[in-house]
Amino acid sequence: MRVYGRNVFNELKSDPSKIKKIFLSKNIDNEVFAFVKENGIHFEVMDTGRLDKLVHGVHQGIIMEVNDFEYSPFEELLDLDKLIILDHLQDPHNFGAIIRTAEALGIKGIIIPKNRSVSINDTVMKVSAGALNYVKICMESNLVNVIDKLKVANYFIYGTDMDGKDYYDVSYAKKVVIVIGSEGEGMSDLVKKNCDEIIAIPMTGKINSLNASVATAIILSKIVR
Amino acid sequence: MRVYGRNVFNELKSDPSKIKKIFLSKNIDNEVFAFVKENGIHFEVMDTGRLDKLVHGVHQGIIMEVNDFEYSPFEELLDLDKLIILDHLQDPHNFGAIIRTAEALGIKGIIIPKNRSVSINDTVMKVSAGALNYVKICMESNLVNVIDKLKVANYFIYGTDMDGKDYYDVSYAKKVVIVIGSEGEGMSDLVKKNCDEIIAIPMTGKINSLNASVATAIILSKIVR
Repeated sequence: MRVYGRNVFNELKSDPSKIKKIFLSKNIDNEVFAFVKENGIHFEVMDTGRLDKLVHGVHQGIIMEVNDFEYSPFEELLDLDKLIILDHLQDPHNFGAIIRTAEALGIKGIIIPKNRSVSINDTVMKVSAGALNYVKICMESNLVNVIDKLKVANYFIYGTDMDGKDYYDVSYAKKVVIVIGSEGEGMSDLVKKNCDEIIAIPMTGKINSLNASVATAIILSKIVR
Repeated sequence: MRVYGRNVFNELKSDPSKIKKIFLSKNIDNEVFAFVKENGIHFEVMDTGRLDKLVHGVHQGIIMEVNDFEYSPFEELLDLDKLIILDHLQDPHNFGAIIRTAEALGIKGIIIPKNRSVSINDTVMKVSAGALNYVKICMESNLVNVIDKLKVANYFIYGTDMDGKDYYDVSYAKKVVIVIGSEGEGMSDLVKKNCDEIIAIPMTGKINSLNASVATAIILSKIVR
């Protein structure tokens, strides 16, 4: 997998063995170059035009080949008190933003479905600004089964939908799962039916919609209190 | 100015006179086409390749020429209880996202500086998802002067910075201004010095940073309570 940008590079500096190869701009600053040489990272210097062809996105002169992302087994997430389920999210920017926000607020586990969902790619990694290294992502085939297993493990499952109870007035359980629906469609009916409670962010404007990653951030910021 | 995408089109449908001309994909659906013809909007149909050259971004087959954005005079914002100052924000995605979130949460006035700041462009309008039509944006040359005038008008000015007081524990004044700094640098020293109080979002993760639009959303969601 190819990842890029300064934030990602800075994160990978703590474990340079993860970088299989690095592509650098001719104009890269000496500090980066010195680090790459000191750590014996296999590198190639090229002009910006060639770098632009390697990835879609703002690479800031640094593109890295790294091992494919390793998803976490479901059981490992059960050590965590707070989890997020993304019910068929589509946009890698939203996914990356949610990973970044979750990590900053101390929420370290996210479950996504295997099919018809965004998964980890270079955009997600870039937008997550390094947070992906500290959040366990688990991919499961059937979200309803996952919710059943989480209930058995004593989690309380909060779905999010327009017709829910004001998220601000809920006193949250200790072990919490927040389910966020897809950008266009929201949660699937079956997932919604299996939630313990449905919560919503009240909106008072003319445009009654929040971006999925913003809505997630607002709810997470309350749950951690 | 050129704007594009379905959300923006849907917003403009309530006042089609704002659309000076519309460029449509050959494959556009009949509903859009019928609306354009019914309302006598000057239109041109072209293939996707030509549309792609008109704007940078996902136009979804609809590009509109509209009148340039009209900024609001400062005095008009003084009718509003809650305002946002963006202290040299740079990223049009963040600006658009902040406009969208603010509107959805009922905050209808934003002040930006004239120089070295993002201003309204097609990306901002697209990301704002139509909310720009309902939020007054004011552009001023000197933010410190603006803050002085807002204090005279009985606003309490909350700056945002890492070393501030936990935003969640503050009991906010009725007339509130929130100052958000730029993505890399935060607030300028002079602006910070002129704030009445500095607030922060506590972070408990390894990556101690939130995206500017996410941080704004979290703080706004508390202020409206």
